[in-house]
Amino acid sequence: MLTQSVNPLENIAIVLVRPQYAGNIGSVSRAMKNMGLARLILVAPEQDHLGDEGRMMATSARDILEKAEIFPNLEEALKGFRWIAGTSGRKGRNRGPFIYPRDICSEILKHAQSVPVAILFGPEDKGLTNEDLAPCQALVSIPTHEGLRSLNLAQAVMVFCYELFVGSLGLSEKGDEISSRGVKPAEFKKIEGMYAHLEELLLKIGFLDAKNPKRIMHTLRRIFGRAGLSDREVAILRGIFRQLEWYATNRDPKNP
Amino acid sequence: MLTQSVNPLENIAIVLVRPQYAGNIGSVSRAMKNMGLARLILVAPEQDHLGDEGRMMATSARDILEKAEIFPNLEEALKGFRWIAGTSGRKGRNRGPFIYPRDICSEILKHAQSVPVAILFGPEDKGLTNEDLAPCQALVSIPTHEGLRSLNLAQAVMVFCYELFVGSLGLSEKGDEISSRGVKPAEFKKIEGMYAHLEELLLKIGFLDAKNPKRIMHTLRRIFGRAGLSDREVAILRGIFRQLEWYATNRDPKNP
Repeated sequence: MLTQSVNPLENIAIVLVRPQYAGNIGSVSRAMKNMGLARLILVAPEQDHLGDEGRMMATSARDILEKAEIFPNLEEALKGFRWIAGTSGRKGRNRGPFIYPRDICSEILKHAQSVPVAILFGPEDKGLTNEDLAPCQALVSIPTHEGLRSLNLAQAVMVFCYELFVGSLGLSEKGDEISSRGVKPAEFKKIEGMYAHLEELLLKIGFLDAKNPKRIMHTLRRIFGRAGLSDREVAILRGIFRQLEWYATNRDPKNP
Repeated sequence: MLTQSVNPLENIAIVLVRPQYAGNIGSVSRAMKNMGLARLILVAPEQDHLGDEGRMMATSARDILEKAEIFPNLEEALKGFRWIAGTSGRKGRNRGPFIYPRDICSEILKHAQSVPVAILFGPEDKGLTNEDLAPCQALVSIPTHEGLRSLNLAQAVMVFCYELFVGSLGLSEKGDEISSRGVKPAEFKKIEGMYAHLEELLLKIGFLDAKNPKRIMHTLRRIFGRAGLSDREVAILRGIFRQLEWYATNRDPKNP
């Protein structure tokens, strides 16, 4: 039997519990689509999410906004879900322990490979109640600075979805050939050829001490080494060196 | 002598380049305050950020909104900064390489322990231009799903600030004043002076197309930007350029 490979992001629903503002619902739709999530559930929203404000904030994520599922209460909304996380900024007594999204997203993604997962966000003013949090397997809190703990609803959803999306990138076969700095490094011998070329040029123009060319070359190697050159960049630099060499070769500096 | 411990987040400015909507500027202020950042710079904003919309979205971050610094152009805004990162969602040809915030935030935080750091975000519709990106040592792109690449401005700022804040939680007082890459960055104006010198030299030797010198210069800026040059390295490079210029100036390539 073939095993269907499941995209865990498609198995994760964002559940907005009693959201107050349609604009935020629109912004949540956009944030979800930015991060590859698609299933939005609204529990007793206070405003019509399909009005102008919601559509405007959703921009190109109107498809998510329009197919949002609506439920009158949380219990109905959560039927069918097998794993549920609740978010809260309020770390009051008997509410914890809370965990950071980064510390739980790989666990969430693993659950979502086999069962439907729901992540709950509370209303803008008060957040989820203890009763809302009761069915949750995990309580998650986004780290914030003490200067202003209260996150905008769509911003909180964005941070959580961002962690899930980044986590999901690490799950798939990476197959990418770029380095952590975004550049596919040139081959060693090409880089060395470039340094030999540069040294020759600098000797020719009298910039390097012929007896001790290594000191300046060491500095230049440090600069280009930190940059981490690509093939294309090495080719451009060698083009520049060739052009400069032509000037240096055809001219005697002592007799201009 | 006592060593003052520097909070790197206080040394990082968020620079909004030609922002279009006051509401977004307000939301950016809130996101910054949520994540412990405080210095907001606006370059040629299109709307009055202190109007109702901006104040409403800022909520309890009005202090950040009200003390935002305004500049007529990016060059003025960046005076005094020693390390600059530009953000972009458009990964066009010759714009990269781009790096993810998570892969560079510890480097940014280390720079910010010793020098002022600026992070640039472009206008809502088009993002930063190649010209805006030219002074940047690093180009950063927030990972997004192919279904909807375009992030709301305040959401992009939130994700970046969130990464910085989470990164700062892991930073203990290390007391070192050099960057992770071992180099204290040169001043912005010194780096820009070096690029001007290099461009002049390459025009002189006919390597740059006088009508479109920016393409090759962009690549060279990316290389040296990734390297993160120190004062001493800038001085050595300018010494090399001067010597090469002497050859290029005293010789007519058409009549050797």
